[in-house]
This record gives sequence, C-alpha cells and structure tokens, in this order.
Amino acid sequence: MLMGVKKFLIGHPLKSNELGDQKLNKKKALAILSSDALSSVAYGPEQILIVLMSISAVAYWYSIPIAGCVLVLLLALILSYRQIIFAYSHGGGAYVVSRENLGVNFGLIAGGSLLVDYILTVSVSVSAGTDAITSAFPNLHPYKVIIACILVALLTLLNLRGITESASILAYPVYLFVLALFILIGVGLYKIITGDVSPQLHESLGTPVAGISLFILLKAFASGSSALTGVEAISNAIPNFKDPAPKNAAKTLVAMGILLAILFTGIVFLAYYYGVGPKHDETVVSQIASQTFGRNGMYFFIQGTTALILVLAANTGYSAFPLLAYNLAKDNYLARMFTNRGDRLGYSNGIIFLGIASILLIIAFQGHTEKLIPLYAVGVFIPFTLSQTGMLVKWIREKPKHWPVKLTINFVGALISFTVMMIFFITKFTQVWAVLIFLPLLILGFHMIKRHYDSVGPQLRIDMENPAVPIEGNVIIVPVAGITKVVENSLNYAKSLNAQVIAVHISFDRDNEKCFEEKWKKWQPDVRLVTIHSSYRSMVQPLTKFIKIVERKANEANHRVTVLIPQFIPNKSWQNVLHNQSSLIIRTVLLYQKDVIVTTVPFHLKE
Amino acid sequence: MLMGVKKFLIGHPLKSNELGDQKLNKKKALAILSSDALSSVAYGPEQILIVLMSISAVAYWYSIPIAGCVLVLLLALILSYRQIIFAYSHGGGAYVVSRENLGVNFGLIAGGSLLVDYILTVSVSVSAGTDAITSAFPNLHPYKVIIACILVALLTLLNLRGITESASILAYPVYLFVLALFILIGVGLYKIITGDVSPQLHESLGTPVAGISLFILLKAFASGSSALTGVEAISNAIPNFKDPAPKNAAKTLVAMGILLAILFTGIVFLAYYYGVGPKHDETVVSQIASQTFGRNGMYFFIQGTTALILVLAANTGYSAFPLLAYNLAKDNYLARMFTNRGDRLGYSNGIIFLGIASILLIIAFQGHTEKLIPLYAVGVFIPFTLSQTGMLVKWIREKPKHWPVKLTINFVGALISFTVMMIFFITKFTQVWAVLIFLPLLILGFHMIKRHYDSVGPQLRIDMENPAVPIEGNVIIVPVAGITKVVENSLNYAKSLNAQVIAVHISFDRDNEKCFEEKWKKWQPDVRLVTIHSSYRSMVQPLTKFIKIVERKANEANHRVTVLIPQFIPNKSWQNVLHNQSSLIIRTVLLYQKDVIVTTVPFHLKE
Repeated sequence: MLMGVKKFLIGHPLKSNELGDQKLNKKKALAILSSDALSSVAYGPEQILIVLMSISAVAYWYSIPIAGCVLVLLLALILSYRQIIFAYSHGGGAYVVSRENLGVNFGLIAGGSLLVDYILTVSVSVSAGTDAITSAFPNLHPYKVIIACILVALLTLLNLRGITESASILAYPVYLFVLALFILIGVGLYKIITGDVSPQLHESLGTPVAGISLFILLKAFASGSSALTGVEAISNAIPNFKDPAPKNAAKTLVAMGILLAILFTGIVFLAYYYGVGPKHDETVVSQIASQTFGRNGMYFFIQGTTALILVLAANTGYSAFPLLAYNLAKDNYLARMFTNRGDRLGYSNGIIFLGIASILLIIAFQGHTEKLIPLYAVGVFIPFTLSQTGMLVKWIREKPKHWPVKLTINFVGALISFTVMMIFFITKFTQVWAVLIFLPLLILGFHMIKRHYDSVGPQLRIDMENPAVPIEGNVIIVPVAGITKVVENSLNYAKSLNAQVIAVHISFDRDNEKCFEEKWKKWQPDVRLVTIHSSYRSMVQPLTKFIKIVERKANEANHRVTVLIPQFIPNKSWQNVLHNQSSLIIRTVLLYQKDVIVTTVPFHLKE
Repeated sequence: MLMGVKKFLIGHPLKSNELGDQKLNKKKALAILSSDALSSVAYGPEQILIVLMSISAVAYWYSIPIAGCVLVLLLALILSYRQIIFAYSHGGGAYVVSRENLGVNFGLIAGGSLLVDYILTVSVSVSAGTDAITSAFPNLHPYKVIIACILVALLTLLNLRGITESASILAYPVYLFVLALFILIGVGLYKIITGDVSPQLHESLGTPVAGISLFILLKAFASGSSALTGVEAISNAIPNFKDPAPKNAAKTLVAMGILLAILFTGIVFLAYYYGVGPKHDETVVSQIASQTFGRNGMYFFIQGTTALILVLAANTGYSAFPLLAYNLAKDNYLARMFTNRGDRLGYSNGIIFLGIASILLIIAFQGHTEKLIPLYAVGVFIPFTLSQTGMLVKWIREKPKHWPVKLTINFVGALISFTVMMIFFITKFTQVWAVLIFLPLLILGFHMIKRHYDSVGPQLRIDMENPAVPIEGNVIIVPVAGITKVVENSLNYAKSLNAQVIAVHISFDRDNEKCFEEKWKKWQPDVRLVTIHSSYRSMVQPLTKFIKIVERKANEANHRVTVLIPQFIPNKSWQNVLHNQSSLIIRTVLLYQKDVIVTTVPFHLKE
C-alpha cells in the first residue's frame, strides 16, 4: 500500500538508461534556473527601504543611487560567471572552482556555504511568496507559517517526480511574472509621464537627510544586493543543459542578467516615485501594484505571479542542492547516500533533506523573510568571492589567450563581492554571526567524513596472496523462552547446520527453573540447555555475559559464535506492538557490541 | 553512556525480590492517593461559578445549595466505595467489579473510560496547577503550556524511580496544602464573624434571578461534581497498602472524604461571601486568598501549596494507570508490555505511555483546564455508575449478612452517579460527544487484541506426538556488492556451514558485469555467482524475485533458505549514516514478506 501511495505521488520508477531525456533547453532553463534571481526583485528593493526607513522617509531617495551600485555589482557578477561557465563546463560552480584553484579548504568553505544557502533559498523564497499571498489576502496572515510549510512540501514532491516535468510546470509562471512586472512598470511609467501620479509623493534626489551616515548607506547597499542572490545558479547546473551546454548556459545567463536589471531598476524607481515605504503586513510590490491599478484583476495577477515565481524560485534550490551534495559526496565529504538516484532519477536524498531542512528553518524563523535574508545574502557572497578569486588564480597560472582581460573581469568581480561580504559582516553582525560558528563546524564535519571514508578502503581491501583462514566450526546459541513451536522451529534449523547447539533459558523466577529443565530433557534430550537466573528482569545482560564465555573458548579453536533469535511475525502489522520486541534489541546490542553473528529465524503466525 | 543517563535519572535497577519494600502506610497512602480528590477543590467550586456566571453574578448564591448536593453525592460515593474496598480487597476497582458482576463488556467500558480518565487526571491537574502558578505570577501566563509539559515530564521521571520514594516526596505538600486551606478558611471565617468583610459583596440566599433554569442549575451541579474526581483512586490501589490492606484503605478513604468535604464547603462559602467570580487569568482560590491576606507571604504559601498539590495530584494517575493497564494486559485486552516491571519495579511502560499521552493532551487543549474538565468528569462518572451497579448485582446474587443495607447504599450510589453522568451528557453534549465515539472504538480495540492473543496460543503449542520433520539441507544466498573483506568474511562463514552457497550480485551497470564475473572466478572459483541486472537501481526487488525461485526448489527438497547479509559496523555510531543502510531494509522486507531466515554477519571496522 505504501508503495502505491509513493507511486501516486512521485510517479512510476524510471530505468537508469532513461536519464538522457531529462536535459533542459534554454527556455526551460531560463525558467527553472533564473526564477531565484528574478524573484529576488520582489524583496530586494524592499530591503533597501527597510534600512533607509530607520533614518526617515526623507532618506528614501537614496534608494536610486544605491540601486545604481547594485546594478554595477550585477554587471560584474554576470561577466565573471560567464567566464566560469566556459572554463568549467562540467559544472560544480563555486565548490569546484575554489577547490581546484584555491585548495581543498576554500573549496569546502564555498561548498558548505552554498549548501546552507540553497536551504535558505528555499526558506526565503517560500516565505516571501507567502508574504505576497498574505498581502493580497490579509486574513491569511496568521497562517503564514503553515502555508509556507505546505508549499515546501509540494515543491519537494514536484522535484521527486523529476526535473523535466517540474520545468514544464514552472516555465509558465516565470514568464507570466516577467510579463506582469513589465506591464506594471510600463503602466507605472506611462502614468508618471502623463502626470497621473503626483511628483509630490517623493523627495527629490539630493535632498539633505539628517542622521544619514556611510554605515547606513553601506548597510542599505548590502541589503539591496540580496536582489542578486541566485545569479550563480546557472553556472552550477551546466550539466543539466542540452548540448552545447556551456554556450546555452552563457546565453541563458546573459538573458537573465538583462531581465533582472530591468525589473530591479523599474521596481526601485516606481517605489521611489510613489513614495512607497515598507509595511508590516504588505509588501512594497503589492503597494506599488495597488497604487498603479487599484485592487482589481490586474493587481491580483501581479500578486499571484509574484507569489508563484517566489515559491518556484525555491525550485532553484532543488536543482542546485542535490547536485552540489552529489559533488561533495563523490569527493567523500558528505554521506554517500547523496549520490543515489531515486525512482525518478533525481538525487532524491538531497531533495528530501533540503525539504525537511527548509521547513525547520521556516518554523524556527516563523516565516519572517527579513530575518532570513541577511544569513542568506552572506551565504551567497562568500562563494561569490571565493569563485571569483579562484578564477583569478587560474588565469594567472594558465595564462590563456586574452588573459589580462579575463583577469581584470574576475578581479573586479572578486573585489566587489569581497567588499559586499565584508559590509554584511560589519553592518549586520548581530544577524549573521552564527555563520562564523556554523561554517567552521561544517568544514570540520566534512573532514571527519572524508577521514572515515578514506580509512575504510584499506580495511576492506582483499589481500589475494593471503586468503582468510577457513572457519573450523560453529557454536550456535539459541535463547529459548519456553517450549513452543517457535523454539522447535529454531532448534530444527540450528540442528540442520554443521554446529554445536546450546539452548539458553533466561529465567526470571527461580521456582519454575527446575520444572522447565525437566520438561526440556524429555522434549529435546540431545540439545544442551543452560539456565541463567536474571535477578534484574533483563534478557540482554545475562545473555551477553554468557556469550562472552562461549566466545572465549570458540576463538581459541577458530570457531565462530552464532546467536539464533526466534522472531515472531504476526499476520497483521499492527499486531507487532502486542509482542515483545526484545529480539530486535538483543540483535542490535549483540551486533554492535560483540563480534557474533546474529541469525533471525522467522515464525510466521497464520491468524 | 545512555545507560549512565538512565541510571542517573531513575536510579540503579532493583532486584525482583526487593518488591515488598514498596508498600504504603496509611499516612503516605493518604498523601499519594488522595491528592487527586483533595486538589479538586482548587477547580471544582470555580466550575460551578463559571456556569452560574453565564446568567449573571446575582446567581452566584446558588453555589451554596448546589454545593450541598455535591456533598450528598460525596457521602454516597464514600459509603459505596467503602463497601467495594472490603468486597474486592485485591484491588482493580471499577474494571474488576464491573467485569465480575456485569460481564466482560461493561468491565471493558469501565476499564476503558478509567484508562482515558487517568490520562485526563494528569492533564487536568497539571494544567490547573499551572493556573495556580500563573495566577500568582501573571507574567508566566504565556508559557503555560511549556510549564505544564515540563511538570509532566518531571512527574514521569519521579514515578519511574519507584512509588515509595515519590511518596516520601509527595507526603509533605499534600499535608501542607490541607494546612494552608485550613488557615485560609479559618482566617476567612474569623474575618467574616468579626465583620471584617462587608456582607454587601454577595446577594443573600434566595434572591430571585432572572433567566435561571433547571438546565443551568443541573449543569452547574454537574460541573461542581468535578470536585469529586479522584475518590475512586483508593479502591483501585488496595494492593499498594500495607497489611491489613482493606482496613487501612477503608480508613484512608473515610479520612479523605472528611477532608474533602471540609475544604470544598469552605471554599464555596468563602467564594460566595466574598462575591468572587471566575476570571480569565486568576483562579477563584487565588482571588479568595488575596482578598483574605493581600498578596503577602501567606498568599504565596497558599498558591504554592495549591500548585504543588495539583501537580502532585497528577501522581494519582501515575499510581492508577499502570496498575489498571497491567490488569487489562493480564486479561489479554492490552499489549503485554504493560505487564513488564522496569528497572525500579514499577510498570514503566504504563508510566511512560501515560506521560506522553498527557503531554499530547495538554498541547492539544493548549492547557485550558476548563475545556478538559467535562471530558474528565464524564470519564469518571461512567465507571462510578458501573461499579456501583456491579455491587448491586453482587449483593442480590450473594446475599451476605446485612445485604439489604449494603444493597441500599450501592443502589443510592449507582442512581446518583448515573444521574450525574446523564446530566453531563445532556447539559454539556457539545463538549463530551467525543466520548461516545472514542469509547466504543477503544472497546473494539480491546477485543481485537484479545482475539489475537487467544489465537496465538494454539499456534505455538507443541504437539509432543508429532515432532517437526528435521530439515534436510540448507541453501545460503549471499548478496555481494564487490570483492572486499566484508564479502570474504561472509563467504567464509557460509562455507563453514553445512549448506549450498550461492553469491548474488545485483548490478546497476551492464558494462561492469563481465569484468566482475571474471574477477570472481579467479577469487572464489568454488562459489557459484549469479549476476542480476537491476534497471531500476533497486536491490530489494531483484533479490526477492531471485529468492522466490530458489525457495520453490528448496521447499520441494525440504531444504531451508537462508539469506546472509554482510553488515558494516563502523567504529563510532555517527558513522552509521555514512554507510548504506540497505542491509536493514533488506532484512525487514525478507523477514516480513518471505519465509526465509536472515543472518547478519557483522564486519567491525577498526578505525
């Protein structure tokens, strides 16, 4: 039945050789990989205004020059990542680039922060999407956290079904969102030009503001650069593109950059011109839309597509996280389960892990987008900086054609990214300090995992010259609780093997011991019975003690000890709770604490 | 390490023959078994006022005659239960009395409602205790649910340590509470007599009240009778008393009845005279105490002991629930695990189950005492009615000395209890309807469990005349993933047994199959290798398919099939996540779905 539910939810399994079908063309790739970056315009401009608001509404005009700086940063990032795409056409992004050029530890820092970041991508995007929904329907506000969690769960299912299918579903909303914002910006500008909007709503550029400082402006700039989160997604996912993958990826990247620049500039400008500020229960985009159109169909179209693209932006995380986890696991820095392909050929363990982690984050932060964003942005700019620096080193080392140009581009990229990262740490330390503790722990974890895997290899290697010494005999210990068919069944099996059989009876009650021993002699005269009294009503301790004694003798003779545990299997699974699960406990304790073999002999009940 | 934590929390294990030490003397028994009933005065009077408040504050004077009715009910119950104690000196209470006299199903209804009721005892008492705390410290109000859950967890631990130890801890607060309320009532009365309290605060008895109806008065009476919850506890726990158990228990019961009557009457009277009504964030007792003393040391003493006794009243549930669960389990109506004594000789499974269930209830009802009480009271009056009726039938059947007197007492008890129960169902149907659905389901569950256990016996019985046919041979299937020491170790073991060995390699990759087979031939020329290609990357399905084929042949020859699973045991337990846990999945599937024996051969990693 469980299998049926699984099949219904994620579809029938695919064969391993059906993998080729799952590649993306440019249009779909733009949708699936750009939704993160494009959707950032729904919260990026708002983050600038939140910082400026701490001074006064007069300071809002600063959002225009700050947006200019963000655009310069965007240009630098797009140019740098374009070079990375061509240089690393097998994908892997910041992790691979940093590891190859800066060394393992920088690679792990980049990889670790990206891993965390993709989880934050999902949490932030889904929270912001829920904000768009609750802006339109304020009475849903109290259910924010639940709505967000349900959305993450749906996304996880979608991704377990496989990339292509979800891409088809995702392509429309992304393009609809772009269309919706183009209409919004177009109509907004038209209204401004025709004088339909009063210019009195905003202070003009250059108005002096009391209390403004470089610190605040830098903080606002850093906050605004959260609109650029997600631009690296394409460079990490090149293997998902149709051939020629690098060319297609580069074109997609540029298209995304242009769209992002237009949308970001448009929203910042409209917000400025309309004099819109952040509100507790309504997003900036929602305010602009309702001022442009009123709360009519067009407003709900904009809010709807915004919510949709934000929720689906989380999908970028679902494309990138499993792939990065796969890369780290392949290099032995993460558990191998992240390399397994699921029924639908996606890396399902990564997908499921991502879903659970995002839901936990959303619950922990109660869906407050603005509190999640600083962590998110810092997590993004660390790998940005590292990958650009990595490229720098690569060009200096390899000196290919036009290397001075390439070098300059990546140098500018690295410098700007590093500056933004430092601004984050300085201006928002109280919100991002956790990164400085968590990231080193993560790196340590990576190394511990790698050390373990590295040590396993030699321990498993076969020495062809010296094959293992054959075992010369076996001792089988059968714990018996009474004189029943279950025990008869187990003894019957034990006797059929080439071994010495010892039955052990753990007694809790001295009075019955004699009686039991006499019955046993009549029933199984050829099987030796050992009775052990347990004063503390424990099965495991007396048994392990006895096994220890048997083991010592057996080892001397190169014999192996097997413990044979009869296991009751009821007809219906709910009936399991009605039976003592001690066989399970005994099995676990023996396997992990002793070097004995554990055999489970099932006894299937018929009724 | 886990064992160490366990020992620290619940103490070192006790031997089975240390059981005798755990019996209760009268003073301790009064404390441990009466705390539930006595503590009910902290919320019982308030429940009457909550109902009357729905009409108007003028109606508060009705609490006096209603309290009179409750006292009559109390007298009837104490007299009836006294008879039960002598007639059923082995304990078991309503469940045993109803089962023996009214038949199995009535016994199960009584037992089922008591089980649920003991869980509610814990939830209600702890919630009310938390109310007492938050009345004294209003800024703790938002943390009500968490405080209540922590208290339940502490109680659970205390009870896992064993009865006597917890009784010693519990005796003081109960007596301190009685002392505190005696002082409160005494000082209150003194102030009233000396004219220190204005008589204008209350309407005089008999003031006409607009809108009062019989329905409301019955509802108020039923609500007030929630102060009697817990009087049955002593009759259920007779085996816990020191000898002569029935006599000691009867004396304790009467002492409790007298104390309860005094405290209940006192609180109701003071509340009436002071004109106190229910408040959202302060209990009635807290209001009386603060009006009598002001918020000084004495006030906090009363609140403190009230909170303490309420929280400890929950302990009655901890004495009664595990014992009742034990009785039901002994009769095969509940899982046998409820009959196991834990390290400290308590029925620890019952204790743990009770703790978890109560916490869930507290969370579900968000710690609202007044919403939990109706369910609680209904659950109490169902077994009250059934056990009194059972006694009725017993006297008619057995006709002992003075039987007409005994009959009359239990008849009155049964009639009153039944009436109160019906009043509950009629006046509070919207709050208690769930009982009518849940209780039948519970009874059905009891029967299903019993039917299962009854069917197991014959299936396990040995037929001495026809011993099982000996097994004539064995086939051992060893799934192999590669050419490693783990596999070598398993094969070595398989070869040492008297069996035909088949190695099975599940391949995910056609290209490597040939290569693997060739290597195998060189390495293990004497072990037959079967390679199966799995297109869907599943281990389990191809394996079970193969086993099916082998099984068919084996069964014909009276051979048994064993699947030998190599299991990797890392040195440190966290490393388990780094290794494929497929052996666990394979084992579970094979044991439950097929009739094969599963042997786990551990391979312990040294680093």
